[in-house]
Amino acid sequence: VISEAARDLLDRFLRGDVRALSRLMTAAENGRGEIREILRMVYPRTGGAHVIGITGPPGSGKSTLTMQVAAEYRRREKTVGIVAVDPTSPFTGGAILGDRIRMMELHTDPNVFVRSMATRGSLGGLARGTLDVVNLLDAFGKDIVLIETVGVGQDEVDIVRAAETILVVGVPGAGDDIQAIKAGILEIADVFVVNKADMPLADQLVKELRAMLQLAPPQAWERPILQTVASQASGIADLVNAIDAHEGYLHQSGARSTRRQDAARRQIQAIVEERLRDQVNELTQRNGWSERVEAVANRNQDPYSAADDLIAKLVSNH
Amino acid sequence: VISEAARDLLDRFLRGDVRALSRLMTAAENGRGEIREILRMVYPRTGGAHVIGITGPPGSGKSTLTMQVAAEYRRREKTVGIVAVDPTSPFTGGAILGDRIRMMELHTDPNVFVRSMATRGSLGGLARGTLDVVNLLDAFGKDIVLIETVGVGQDEVDIVRAAETILVVGVPGAGDDIQAIKAGILEIADVFVVNKADMPLADQLVKELRAMLQLAPPQAWERPILQTVASQASGIADLVNAIDAHEGYLHQSGARSTRRQDAARRQIQAIVEERLRDQVNELTQRNGWSERVEAVANRNQDPYSAADDLIAKLVSNH
Repeated sequence: VISEAARDLLDRFLRGDVRALSRLMTAAENGRGEIREILRMVYPRTGGAHVIGITGPPGSGKSTLTMQVAAEYRRREKTVGIVAVDPTSPFTGGAILGDRIRMMELHTDPNVFVRSMATRGSLGGLARGTLDVVNLLDAFGKDIVLIETVGVGQDEVDIVRAAETILVVGVPGAGDDIQAIKAGILEIADVFVVNKADMPLADQLVKELRAMLQLAPPQAWERPILQTVASQASGIADLVNAIDAHEGYLHQSGARSTRRQDAARRQIQAIVEERLRDQVNELTQRNGWSERVEAVANRNQDPYSAADDLIAKLVSNH
Repeated sequence: VISEAARDLLDRFLRGDVRALSRLMTAAENGRGEIREILRMVYPRTGGAHVIGITGPPGSGKSTLTMQVAAEYRRREKTVGIVAVDPTSPFTGGAILGDRIRMMELHTDPNVFVRSMATRGSLGGLARGTLDVVNLLDAFGKDIVLIETVGVGQDEVDIVRAAETILVVGVPGAGDDIQAIKAGILEIADVFVVNKADMPLADQLVKELRAMLQLAPPQAWERPILQTVASQASGIADLVNAIDAHEGYLHQSGARSTRRQDAARRQIQAIVEERLRDQVNELTQRNGWSERVEAVANRNQDPYSAADDLIAKLVSNH
């Protein structure tokens, strides 16, 4: 039961209208209103796409690599959707436009759809919104969905874990401090990429990764280390072959269904968490609550009791 | 009503026993059991410390800067607690030890307490745990509590926003891509620090920051831009003067109580969110739930309905 306007939008989406896709994505990012019902209705059409997560520290050239992987899939006659998640901004207050503009080149190809996720602000919901946008691209019929995200922050780990093949990208000689990614990301990589592999210390980074893999417990899927120079489109075909090999492994081994269950669980939790967070926020903005907050701020009350009361209130509201 | 052992631990904490502080912090990070009651009991003793957040992108030298700020406060005869939040790991799988080891030097001073927050794993709770540890240091009687965190990820924004004075640190010439910090962090800075100010492009970064500040709406507190070379202890006294000036401004203007209310609200929400998340996780591990997840994974059910059911279940459990 959705409005006529929503029905019309959905029909256009199902007929392959890219503008309808775009409008639904904006609604999905926002997450309120009829879009929830629409997402419900299109969900059975998902599951056809191979979802690939690409993550790495700032400066690793992820965006360029993502664009090149997309271009390679296009050469192989696959349709591609890209979701770029970048909740960061540079220290100087400018905008990181370079990579985004290079990505725009792909916009001229109607079979590649690029979506940059806006920052959702302090309320979060980034994971929920991104997974909804991935579902829309999947339901729209894209063969490949690439999720590009900087590998720091819990939201982004949640997002990248929903992918079926996870690429972790590093860059030679940047120093450990700058290479820092979210703890736990390395462990979930299916394919390692040493990008900017024409830089002096590339071999050393490959060696270090190899040593790390030798120390790790053996896995059924032997995680490859690929070298690319994304800015020169070098090494991309081999990388896409490695991704395809991983997809093949997932199918043959049955690991795919475990992955999909894990992704389903994460998506359900992301939806639940956002809804609960919304409700908590709403409650704390109501009359009477600001006195509680003030009492905690003045140390006349403790935040743990206030939290208990808030949960009790949340439950009684249902 | 806590056990005798917990009572004993609390007594030792109140008598200034550093080992008791340390044990309570470990319990607080975990967050389960009697520690909740203990945190309730010590909360009225908090509020004496000035809490300072130090954040910036990887490679900006935050850790060294934090150590130097702590050393300067010691010279001014203040007691100091440091909470280092670093949920990242380097791409190569090694550990970022350098800064941590340098920090250890301060360990020999009994009036500086350094705590590194371990990664809380994928379940989160990092913000809640960090704020509890800050409260313990505050209740223990520290004059100054420094929270050091890499400026990416929603959790870390939540953490740093709980501070009363927020320092944002950048490094000259690193390039915008590597300087990337969480969107919204720049806006909440009270003091900007250009660290490694002996590097060639320091003046340019200062100019860029100044231009950015001129474009921003004017604020009652004029945000200063300080230059430091933390590795040489240069510029630190001026920086600490600027922090003290901000503390003075907060007191005189009345802005401090607004800050503290905001911090209280954030802490309550962090506690609520962790508890709800725990409950959701527990529910999804119960019998019967894995079939639901499987149905969603197989596209026989949609995740939105499953989320609705999960929330209904959560509420009926109370």
